[in-house]
Amino acid sequence: MWSKSILFAATSSPTLKLMPVPVKVELTKGKFRLSDSFTMAVTGAANERLYKYSTRALRRLSNRTGLFFSQDFITKKTKSDNVDMVINFKRKGKVALNEDESYQLIITPEKIELYSETDIGAFRGVETFLQLLEADEHGYYFPAVKIEDRPRFPWRGLLIDACRHWMPVEVIKRNLDGMAAAKLNVMHWHLTEDQGFRVECKTFPKLHELGSDGFYYTQEQIKEIIKYADERGIRVMPEFDMPGHATSWFIGYPELASAPGPYEIECRWGIKDPTMNPAREETYEFLDKFLAEMSKLFPDDYFHIGGDENTGKQWDANPEIQAFMKANDIPDNHQLQAYFNKRILAILTKYGKKMVGWDEIFQPGLPASIVIQSWRGQKALIDAAKKGYQAILSNGYYIDMIHPTDMHYLNDPIPEDAPLTEKEKKFILGGEATMWAELVTPENVESRIWPRTAAIAERFWSPASIKDIDDMYRRLEVMSFRLEEFGLTHEKNYDMMLRRLTNGGDISALKTLVDVFEPIKVYSRHFQGKTFTSYSPYTRAVDAARPDAKVAREFRNLVDEYLVKKTKENAEKIKLWFWHWKQNHEDLMETIKGSPILKEIEPASENLATVSKIGLEAMDYIESGKTASTLWVSDKMAVLEAVKKPVAELELMIIPAVEKLVQAAGKQG
Amino acid sequence: MWSKSILFAATSSPTLKLMPVPVKVELTKGKFRLSDSFTMAVTGAANERLYKYSTRALRRLSNRTGLFFSQDFITKKTKSDNVDMVINFKRKGKVALNEDESYQLIITPEKIELYSETDIGAFRGVETFLQLLEADEHGYYFPAVKIEDRPRFPWRGLLIDACRHWMPVEVIKRNLDGMAAAKLNVMHWHLTEDQGFRVECKTFPKLHELGSDGFYYTQEQIKEIIKYADERGIRVMPEFDMPGHATSWFIGYPELASAPGPYEIECRWGIKDPTMNPAREETYEFLDKFLAEMSKLFPDDYFHIGGDENTGKQWDANPEIQAFMKANDIPDNHQLQAYFNKRILAILTKYGKKMVGWDEIFQPGLPASIVIQSWRGQKALIDAAKKGYQAILSNGYYIDMIHPTDMHYLNDPIPEDAPLTEKEKKFILGGEATMWAELVTPENVESRIWPRTAAIAERFWSPASIKDIDDMYRRLEVMSFRLEEFGLTHEKNYDMMLRRLTNGGDISALKTLVDVFEPIKVYSRHFQGKTFTSYSPYTRAVDAARPDAKVAREFRNLVDEYLVKKTKENAEKIKLWFWHWKQNHEDLMETIKGSPILKEIEPASENLATVSKIGLEAMDYIESGKTASTLWVSDKMAVLEAVKKPVAELELMIIPAVEKLVQAAGKQG
Repeated sequence: MWSKSILFAATSSPTLKLMPVPVKVELTKGKFRLSDSFTMAVTGAANERLYKYSTRALRRLSNRTGLFFSQDFITKKTKSDNVDMVINFKRKGKVALNEDESYQLIITPEKIELYSETDIGAFRGVETFLQLLEADEHGYYFPAVKIEDRPRFPWRGLLIDACRHWMPVEVIKRNLDGMAAAKLNVMHWHLTEDQGFRVECKTFPKLHELGSDGFYYTQEQIKEIIKYADERGIRVMPEFDMPGHATSWFIGYPELASAPGPYEIECRWGIKDPTMNPAREETYEFLDKFLAEMSKLFPDDYFHIGGDENTGKQWDANPEIQAFMKANDIPDNHQLQAYFNKRILAILTKYGKKMVGWDEIFQPGLPASIVIQSWRGQKALIDAAKKGYQAILSNGYYIDMIHPTDMHYLNDPIPEDAPLTEKEKKFILGGEATMWAELVTPENVESRIWPRTAAIAERFWSPASIKDIDDMYRRLEVMSFRLEEFGLTHEKNYDMMLRRLTNGGDISALKTLVDVFEPIKVYSRHFQGKTFTSYSPYTRAVDAARPDAKVAREFRNLVDEYLVKKTKENAEKIKLWFWHWKQNHEDLMETIKGSPILKEIEPASENLATVSKIGLEAMDYIESGKTASTLWVSDKMAVLEAVKKPVAELELMIIPAVEKLVQAAGKQG
Repeated sequence: MWSKSILFAATSSPTLKLMPVPVKVELTKGKFRLSDSFTMAVTGAANERLYKYSTRALRRLSNRTGLFFSQDFITKKTKSDNVDMVINFKRKGKVALNEDESYQLIITPEKIELYSETDIGAFRGVETFLQLLEADEHGYYFPAVKIEDRPRFPWRGLLIDACRHWMPVEVIKRNLDGMAAAKLNVMHWHLTEDQGFRVECKTFPKLHELGSDGFYYTQEQIKEIIKYADERGIRVMPEFDMPGHATSWFIGYPELASAPGPYEIECRWGIKDPTMNPAREETYEFLDKFLAEMSKLFPDDYFHIGGDENTGKQWDANPEIQAFMKANDIPDNHQLQAYFNKRILAILTKYGKKMVGWDEIFQPGLPASIVIQSWRGQKALIDAAKKGYQAILSNGYYIDMIHPTDMHYLNDPIPEDAPLTEKEKKFILGGEATMWAELVTPENVESRIWPRTAAIAERFWSPASIKDIDDMYRRLEVMSFRLEEFGLTHEKNYDMMLRRLTNGGDISALKTLVDVFEPIKVYSRHFQGKTFTSYSPYTRAVDAARPDAKVAREFRNLVDEYLVKKTKENAEKIKLWFWHWKQNHEDLMETIKGSPILKEIEPASENLATVSKIGLEAMDYIESGKTASTLWVSDKMAVLEAVKKPVAELELMIIPAVEKLVQAAGKQG
């Protein structure tokens, strides 16, 4: 329909409220008006998956608009003549790497047409269609538009760690819905860890019976989830981490380990020593039977064996293993793990699976079918691609590290300056956001995943040229709100958690505070005096606080705007915030009195008041045109530096803006 | 420990924040201080159910307080000497009617002791214990107290209709948690209806395959739910409604029906004609096999066969059935259904089950083991008891009718003036709240169940003398907030639904409005111009609005208080509300502009402004001491009468208060 060269001239396309932004969007004239007589049909071969997807779309439209559609279902009996929207697809897609996900969407005032090669492409197009819904004084409508779209990368994933904290079936399901809305296509399911073995295993039942505290997925539940993902065009790739991160295997089967047991389920976080014994043939016999069962249970072509963070201590201490290394000319633990990996690779290959592992598994001599997942950096990715290995990027997408959205968003799997040929670039399949679950529970995990992962999903789907931060945030806000229709709790559990913190009291003062704080970044929460385990409470202010705190971000933008052009209006807005924050301390102290769990944030509230007072003083200077003394500036900067110290694992996100105001106050006149 | 006579002198006990109120509460001196060194143990025989329950209790305490307890688990290895809290129980309880659920709880500043006959009694006691958590400036504590407690009625149920709208597993589970917190002990699971057959049936798979649109519980899920309920001391009683309400059975097995098929799943509401054929022997052969399978799947002693609302039209029209009636001297449809019931009773008895059914099944000659569930009125209940039949009350507990909490609360299964002897009273086993699901979805069903059902639960558990409405509302608010810890959505989905209605915009004006409106009562929503079906949107303002609207209720109380004693302070409060509501209209109009789904509530917002203006005028008269003219009063009363008319199926709940003010304005001086 459009030539390829036009297709990739995407920067000039309007982005509307679409996320990810399609390759090409051309607005045409008019509006398609939505009414309760709206009807949809699917043409071509009967396709249950697409009937269900489009029926859900109909329901979502009805729920958003309150329209009582006369049509209840889309089925093979639905006639496609005289309907308002027709979905045309050619064949059933395979939920597999490199399947065609492209689509074209054409909306005119009279009709809506969606064309795709596969039903999976149609799913992607339906999501775009739903994002186009608009309203004006006459009701709901879709703008007339021509869209052509296809993904930039074929591997667009989200890792969910169901081990460190158990994630119930419904959490997985609603996140799959969110993924489909964001056009992600791989759920990487981290299923075994020191802290838990989360899969029912029929061959070796003590794995889940003794390794899980009762929190594991039954095989029926796993099949249900795989089907749910399949119906949304999402691959489910399991990860069984080995030889390290494997304590939970050893409760039932200590003979697998490199040191004698007994073992207990680990409830602390960090890198642990228990490691499988690579020197015993029985280990491979066990894993052969285990992988035979799991290869059948998980239909995806790819199978993740982890392979990360083996301390090697158990190997060093085991004479049998040392003797094995000597006998086999294995010089070090690194090579021993390479040996282990090759053995596992042979088993997986036998069962028709392609192996995926973290950086550490990468060793020359592995077949080109394997995939390297880089958590350590972009370099590993580029090295792998240069050597002709496929790779996916996770470094820079660790959403558990609580970085702001734009940082993830600008992290490109293939940076513009990547020293790769066009051919080498093809080896970079895409990337994955990783939701490690040490510090989250089912209650707040979605506030870490969403909405930031939608921006990462755009990085994986949309042309590299799409990188306007402000436009991303504008669209992300709409996306975040729409994601609630799947029951996702990233928004609604915030107030709920605040209510618990105030012991059912008024949350407004607490919210004012927590709105401008974020949990401290990376993994520094582990070094603030508290030892976190599986059983710690994750219900404190830091757990309610959200990444990329919106109020703080918008305030920083407001200050930036003001410092460029000092309008009276923006000055008033800034001062209003400062007054509000300064006043808040007293109200919050009342709340804290009735709720000892909040005692720890008292200094945070004082800090907010202090920073706000400084901000008001700076505004006084700036507005009056007087220059603040060097002493005043250095004094205030020192105070601001001091309050950067985390309180209750929280950091105050308006400080950079106030620093700018203080600096500006010193440069007046 | 206390004599029985003291036990039932419950009115003088302090109610604290307990719900349901225990039989006897005696506050003693001091406080038990909670710290992170807090430990619990269970003595007596090993009991997995109680270990898990108490471990969850430990976690709930940790989550509320943010305390990092050193203890992770309670297991059989946990030593009971030197722990802070000991749970002593005698034997594992049977999750069955009339099991002992009593407990004693003794808290001193040094120690917490819980005594019970069964582990189920211990579950009830643990909930009371958790409700006693308090806080002061020194931290968290439990007041020293002696509590003795036992239920008034042995059957305390909640019916969940999973047919009219599908209720996923997690919805059932979190409601079971809520039930346990409220000390309810029967989940009556309404599993088949015209609109859906919700159970996997292995003998007759076309029942769920063709009768459910894919929304049914697998047998594994049913077992999981029964286990979940068992671990909370809750019986799960299934209901398979027959011979009417059975369309969904006939899609796969039309030969069961009294008229030839084919049948389709019903998606409209109301009483439908399709009815099982009681004249064919094959019907009973089918049901025998079916009930054989279901009797095994559901372990409870009781089995509900529905039996309500058979129109009889299919029977009247079927010559075969007419001939059968003639041949067997069956004079009318009523007797024919009695014949059908007796046949089913024989089958159920063979499989070790006791039969339960709605009023309609009651016929002389049935065995005394059956239980009558009265939906039509208290009279049926009393009639049954007088004739020596066991009965439970649901009339007056239809929570889908959106009545205020106090109405349900004051509805007693055995009213003080009930014409029953003490012996007859024993036949009244208790009652059940019924959550029929025509007009609710998984998204808002919990806002209909909670918190009102907690007040009904108190009616079933606490002494009849506990009936102070204000005290109930005070405690209900705490209970409602605490119920959120199970993930229940009655509170948090309110804002979420409002956000969808404003299309992601500011919800404050909309909330101000919806806070004082309630969905219209009983089933009048069906007669307001819209035809509701399975596939209608249940996302409009009326679906977000909640029963017993708190803001409106508190405003009515405020006005009542003011009219008794006209304080300046209350006058200001009242006027502030009126100003707020009057002003709100303009803001809300802005919101409505961007969200056509809200167009329908524009008149509701106008009404609120109108009523508020009248309220302000009345306050002017009252405060100035001038008497309003009779004409003014009658004019305003007429306006108020007119705005009682529902708008968008919503009714404005502050009108009665404003009527009182208008009347008062006319009686000044």
